[in-house]
Amino acid sequence: MRHPLLVPDLRELIHAGEVSALHDFLEESHPGRVAELIEDLEPEEGEVLFRALPPRCRAEATGFLDTETQTRLVSSMTPREAADLLHLMSHDERADLVKRLDEDFVDLVLPYLAQAERDDIRSLAMYEPGTAGAVMTTDYVTLSPKITVGEALERLRYEAPDRETIYCCYVVDDKRRLIGFVSLKKLILSRRAARIEEIMQRDVISAKVDEDQEPVARTIDRYALIAIPVVDSEDKLLGIVTHDDAMDILRQEQTEDMLAFGGVSKSAEPDQESSYLEGNILDSVRRRVGWLLLLFLGGTITRYVIESFDWVDKKFPTIAFDSLIPLLIGTGGNAGSQTVGTIIRGLALGEIQPGDTWKVVLREMTTGFSLGLLLGSVGFFFTWKIHGDSPMFALVIAMAILGICVWANGVGALVPLLAKRLNIDPALVSAPLISTLVDATGLVIFYTITIILLIKIAGTG
Amino acid sequence: MRHPLLVPDLRELIHAGEVSALHDFLEESHPGRVAELIEDLEPEEGEVLFRALPPRCRAEATGFLDTETQTRLVSSMTPREAADLLHLMSHDERADLVKRLDEDFVDLVLPYLAQAERDDIRSLAMYEPGTAGAVMTTDYVTLSPKITVGEALERLRYEAPDRETIYCCYVVDDKRRLIGFVSLKKLILSRRAARIEEIMQRDVISAKVDEDQEPVARTIDRYALIAIPVVDSEDKLLGIVTHDDAMDILRQEQTEDMLAFGGVSKSAEPDQESSYLEGNILDSVRRRVGWLLLLFLGGTITRYVIESFDWVDKKFPTIAFDSLIPLLIGTGGNAGSQTVGTIIRGLALGEIQPGDTWKVVLREMTTGFSLGLLLGSVGFFFTWKIHGDSPMFALVIAMAILGICVWANGVGALVPLLAKRLNIDPALVSAPLISTLVDATGLVIFYTITIILLIKIAGTG
Repeated sequence: MRHPLLVPDLRELIHAGEVSALHDFLEESHPGRVAELIEDLEPEEGEVLFRALPPRCRAEATGFLDTETQTRLVSSMTPREAADLLHLMSHDERADLVKRLDEDFVDLVLPYLAQAERDDIRSLAMYEPGTAGAVMTTDYVTLSPKITVGEALERLRYEAPDRETIYCCYVVDDKRRLIGFVSLKKLILSRRAARIEEIMQRDVISAKVDEDQEPVARTIDRYALIAIPVVDSEDKLLGIVTHDDAMDILRQEQTEDMLAFGGVSKSAEPDQESSYLEGNILDSVRRRVGWLLLLFLGGTITRYVIESFDWVDKKFPTIAFDSLIPLLIGTGGNAGSQTVGTIIRGLALGEIQPGDTWKVVLREMTTGFSLGLLLGSVGFFFTWKIHGDSPMFALVIAMAILGICVWANGVGALVPLLAKRLNIDPALVSAPLISTLVDATGLVIFYTITIILLIKIAGTG
Repeated sequence: MRHPLLVPDLRELIHAGEVSALHDFLEESHPGRVAELIEDLEPEEGEVLFRALPPRCRAEATGFLDTETQTRLVSSMTPREAADLLHLMSHDERADLVKRLDEDFVDLVLPYLAQAERDDIRSLAMYEPGTAGAVMTTDYVTLSPKITVGEALERLRYEAPDRETIYCCYVVDDKRRLIGFVSLKKLILSRRAARIEEIMQRDVISAKVDEDQEPVARTIDRYALIAIPVVDSEDKLLGIVTHDDAMDILRQEQTEDMLAFGGVSKSAEPDQESSYLEGNILDSVRRRVGWLLLLFLGGTITRYVIESFDWVDKKFPTIAFDSLIPLLIGTGGNAGSQTVGTIIRGLALGEIQPGDTWKVVLREMTTGFSLGLLLGSVGFFFTWKIHGDSPMFALVIAMAILGICVWANGVGALVPLLAKRLNIDPALVSAPLISTLVDATGLVIFYTITIILLIKIAGTG
């Protein structure tokens, strides 16, 4: 419960049937908070609250409700009430809600809406999921270049209630082509008699309707926009994507990066992307099995590496080399994962450019060297003093750790940077991938050092 | 270069000294784009462009420049010019810029600024990094509750040029306590004669000045706000945090989660957080060595596990168990990383609640079972047909893979969920941690299955 102090008071008002007191309270609240209160109350109480809301506030609060509560409350309305609600909702949220409602119910509701609204709902639902078209809204303000600032302000006043935002106004020619942009701030600051074409900004940052949603959200972020206009291939204005949608998109994409880092592929059909507990297990298996299988097959190399160095084991029957292997390659995998995480972050924040590749790899290998020295010393001490092996064997372990740390950090830096250069999303370079890459090569490093130190130098062979 | 078509034309204008044409071009461009052009040009050309900008546009573009270019350009100005620039910049960006400039230069610049501006810069610089205070700006609009809408609009018109946003107006009493909120949209829609106190929203969503920046950004996101007011413990209004700052914060925090997932700790002193290539390697080592060492020490358990099952190896001198260990525990680590990535994402999106723990763990183990069946079959085929081992040993491998996948998925789900319950950030549960946890236990599973299948059932012992 997010509002433990408010909810008991509200319950009292609801059960006493104090509709006008409820009304007053709700009118002064942010619709997002009202939505939270509805979710926190018992379903029947929430419904009373929802019905007590002034129509416009109800439409706004609906947009903030979680999808389940939203669908439940709207489905319990009469078709006429539902149509009144849809009429007042912002166009993108309305289209999303209609998609989730029962088809039979929608068929009863739609006749109560104007033809233009039905067309709008239908056309917004048609864009391919994951594109600018699918997230844009159509309730924006357009201005003609010939009208004056005074006329524009009058128009805004008239249109404001039905617009998602009036802070960004888009100037279109008579063919609806986007030719300029004026912020409300600019309108307020300009002479009332000035024409829009005199004050508009002609360099409009816009998005294409079939563009992927992520770069669109990034553009909003980069230029600190409140909204971005969406146009078709002929520059005709079709809709806008607002800053809050951009935040949703970036949150979604960034958590997908987390999935990718864990080694899980994207869902093949993003429109069927369902929330964790609703999704089916088969889809979950499908998204993981590809990487897991590939890495498994890659991992079989370790078996051949170990077998090909079998003669080393046989040369030293008293030393249990194999018992140290998981520790050594595990450390390599850990160091590599740290590096990949660091590099992916640096790339995402723009702190690392693809041109910095060698500088970065060198830097990471230096870091790996320092970490390897520290860890190698600990390993030396452990092997010699705690586990009671010979100091020479302890030295082998220490050197192997050093070598593996340098190598793992190098690979962990190089692979995402190479991916970036090849235009592959570096976030797809997962911790499991690096671990697997480092496993087999780490073993080679271990055996090579064993051969050099124990056979060539100590000459124990 | 982000504007390959524009840059050559601009170069021509710059070298021909066509200042008025430059001026016209720049005035119609978004300041964010102007900043990119400055960065893309040669340093001397960029400086010409920067100087050709109309003052207000220059101040806005400065806020979009990367810190290095920003510092270079401003440092090359005369103190008087720099002061004029600072005067027009948004207050939060101004304070950040001053922090980065050379102290001696700042001492020359400050006397050109008004006392109030100097105080503002100083006080904004004093908030603890990472708090709402450190990211807020002070150029916002306040209104008195007693004035009329018409008066408020007049006031906005007068103040707009010097305000970061005029779309959110905050109503304060005579002690500067925040008592209400009015959007510009609401002002435009209201009767000119209405008093602010009649139309304001009294339920204002606000942040505390010493609050961590991340929850503040999340609040902006949750309620789709353009800005959030920041107050002190007495509810006095101190500043606002805008939607674009919230995006920056969330981007920063989410890439930090990526680091954490890779097993790198946060920097101990967030104010000294420097960009990747500027940071020193020692800091980088310090942030990684803790986890790496802990996991190394945890990893030493694998050695003891393998040694304690040494008698199994000895019982089957013809089978090279150890050569399969890296593959088996590697697969466990990979499956575990996939699960952690999935769970952390589900928690971040609110799709998974801590109360769902057992449901989620069961679900993940089922997924692990399916993956284990698939991978185990592949493993069986490989071991028997490709590597030429006995079918019984191939079955051991297949069963071990199955067991390890179920176990790894269970651990990968349980650990972040337990962390969440214990109020530890689940994003701190890293892929390396899960891999290490699964390594030793995976070995136990492998040897147990070997003992059951090869010794108890086949009775080869």
